[in-house]
Amino acid sequence: MTDATALVADLTRSARAAARTLATLPTATKASALHAAADALRAAEAAIVAANAVDLDKATAAGLSGALLDRLRLDGARVRAMAEGVAAVAGLPDPVGALIDERVRPNGLVLRRIRVPIGVIGIIYESRPNVTADAAALAVMAGNAVILRGGSEAIESNRAIHAALVSGLAAHGVPADAAQLVPTTDRAAVGAMLVADGSGGGDAIDLIVPRGGKGLVARVQAEARVPVLAHLDGINHVYVDGSADPAMAQAIVRDAKLRRTGVCGAMETLLIDRDYPQAAALVAGLSEAGCEVRVDAALARHFPELTRASDADWDTEYLDAIASATLVDGVDGAIAHIARHGSHHTDAIVAADATVADRFLAQVDSAIVLWNASTQFADGGEFGLGAEIGIATGRLHARGPVALEGLTTYKWIGYGTGQVRG
Amino acid sequence: MTDATALVADLTRSARAAARTLATLPTATKASALHAAADALRAAEAAIVAANAVDLDKATAAGLSGALLDRLRLDGARVRAMAEGVAAVAGLPDPVGALIDERVRPNGLVLRRIRVPIGVIGIIYESRPNVTADAAALAVMAGNAVILRGGSEAIESNRAIHAALVSGLAAHGVPADAAQLVPTTDRAAVGAMLVADGSGGGDAIDLIVPRGGKGLVARVQAEARVPVLAHLDGINHVYVDGSADPAMAQAIVRDAKLRRTGVCGAMETLLIDRDYPQAAALVAGLSEAGCEVRVDAALARHFPELTRASDADWDTEYLDAIASATLVDGVDGAIAHIARHGSHHTDAIVAADATVADRFLAQVDSAIVLWNASTQFADGGEFGLGAEIGIATGRLHARGPVALEGLTTYKWIGYGTGQVRG
Repeated sequence: MTDATALVADLTRSARAAARTLATLPTATKASALHAAADALRAAEAAIVAANAVDLDKATAAGLSGALLDRLRLDGARVRAMAEGVAAVAGLPDPVGALIDERVRPNGLVLRRIRVPIGVIGIIYESRPNVTADAAALAVMAGNAVILRGGSEAIESNRAIHAALVSGLAAHGVPADAAQLVPTTDRAAVGAMLVADGSGGGDAIDLIVPRGGKGLVARVQAEARVPVLAHLDGINHVYVDGSADPAMAQAIVRDAKLRRTGVCGAMETLLIDRDYPQAAALVAGLSEAGCEVRVDAALARHFPELTRASDADWDTEYLDAIASATLVDGVDGAIAHIARHGSHHTDAIVAADATVADRFLAQVDSAIVLWNASTQFADGGEFGLGAEIGIATGRLHARGPVALEGLTTYKWIGYGTGQVRG
Repeated sequence: MTDATALVADLTRSARAAARTLATLPTATKASALHAAADALRAAEAAIVAANAVDLDKATAAGLSGALLDRLRLDGARVRAMAEGVAAVAGLPDPVGALIDERVRPNGLVLRRIRVPIGVIGIIYESRPNVTADAAALAVMAGNAVILRGGSEAIESNRAIHAALVSGLAAHGVPADAAQLVPTTDRAAVGAMLVADGSGGGDAIDLIVPRGGKGLVARVQAEARVPVLAHLDGINHVYVDGSADPAMAQAIVRDAKLRRTGVCGAMETLLIDRDYPQAAALVAGLSEAGCEVRVDAALARHFPELTRASDADWDTEYLDAIASATLVDGVDGAIAHIARHGSHHTDAIVAADATVADRFLAQVDSAIVLWNASTQFADGGEFGLGAEIGIATGRLHARGPVALEGLTTYKWIGYGTGQVRG
């Protein structure tokens, strides 16, 4: 057993023990503990900012880019926002204990399906230290123990945040091991977490949630032996049907691409019905709004000044003010394009024709499909789910925004009066 | 790319195309097609029995045991029962299209969560050829394409069953590739299915369901890169509390162990409260009913003639008329024993005291927990779910009996009127 394996085995054993206690805590206890954790974060503002300064100094010395430094940086306002986030989670409805369904069998056996926590959740994330607080709060509110593995560049910040968090939680009867921070920056610890299925010493991690860039998510998905909730790409499409209202199409396409270009719900490819009479105005509008539009051969005839899209463009998540655009043969052409190039994240249709829209909504196999709305609504908050731990594009367990309910499972409870199968 | 990888890549591509059609078929079409498949099975009775005779001859020549030969054997009655099973699935409520929940956002966006098929499901099974029909029927009714990989000893039987099945399905507009049988007995095909995550040519298998003995399930769980729904062990406990009614305890324990000893819901370990005054009568009753009871040190003092349980007994699934038995310190002792030795399948408490029972039901972390009922109710049919494809002991997606609903997932559909996030 390597050091990393032994370390993760210890963490999982402690986490499992904490999870057993957490699973039975009343909502009020978890909420009080999270409010106390929020207070502790506020009280530790100076210590957290000081710890963050150490990380920032090291990162600057190591030559990290400005964008990465900004993600890493904490000031008083950011610490207070983090505390607010934790307090907000305390106010969300507790999914644990909810009755999913109940059936009474002919023999009198009453069967209830009840929501219960998943158990032990591993969060693997990068430079944003606020994930330490956000993810821990969500996991704990849903009754799970969490093992946090942040980026090595944020280790001092994460330690300070974690210490405050745990002091608050523990003051209200939540086990201290409910939220554990992997104490080392050894990358082998990540590998050990990804294979912690309980078969080789220690207990199992029931679910891994990676939070970070594509490199991290790809590594987690490739190496994990335990279930992962995540999305790798958000290659999202807006299809503008021939029946679309031109003003609505213009507004939705612009918002979907440009409101924020770096979010996973941003549009990357614009699909335009060959029968849409305002195709040129749509492309021109997007281009004039500051987006580099990479066009197919048909559009290039009208827009010789625009970049021609290469084959790779249809499979590219730009996360920037760039979009690919192509004419398609109606809704079926759009569905076929998305089936080939989509990433099962979020796709939208703009159309006045309800029959066409229903066809798109039924046949596009994505976690989120939208009619006459911007893809940028792909967000747990916008869905009214409260904070989200991420967006999942897999097909099992939870799809789309993963919030508190996605961090639970269920058990069957049978109430008998002596029934035997006989 | 090996031959097996190329073969599975072809199968997954065909399956994905079929799944796209299946996902949008109305319930009536799927039901008619399954009824036609049942009729085709009945019509092919002679051909199926003849194909089975070829398998049986080979198996006999290869020296297969009587129990294995019996699992493999098909006669007219078994073929007709298989057809009945397929027809019964056609009558189950279709989970696809069901509205899970709906919310209207303050901006007017209407968000619906709708049940949809998972997509492509792989079934890996052993000698029972009826799984070919049972599993295909369930998968197709839930709108999924299925790739079937049966045991090599049943290949001729499976081919005959599969041919009948597909002829029936295809006559009613279900794509022929909705149910594909892996045409080779090459074991490498199983390995290729287990890693078919879409990353290396071909499309993804979204879910694997292994049906068979522990060796098969263990291999699938160890090697799979795609999600697996299964249980490895059913180390199920009955805990008899001090407050239990002795007649009820006796009846439940006997049924849980002995009704059928080879099913995954059978009790393997009996936990008796030290304060239960009828412990001796309970053990004696089970023993007299024909069960070998392996006892702990305390019970051995009263039953010197019984086998002493070794450490390994507490972790053993006998699937036979054998049980281990130990005294425990009340419900907390039972909960601790199950936490250490259980397999998260099915555990029961016999108790008159509701507070004690609630503690057990809340703290035992198993897919199914029962109060005053036999563990042998762990069965989709007994739960009123219709036929089951298996029982799952993992924590994600589906737990306990996996029936039609467990073979679906959901998507979010948003209905807007031009909403942008702005």
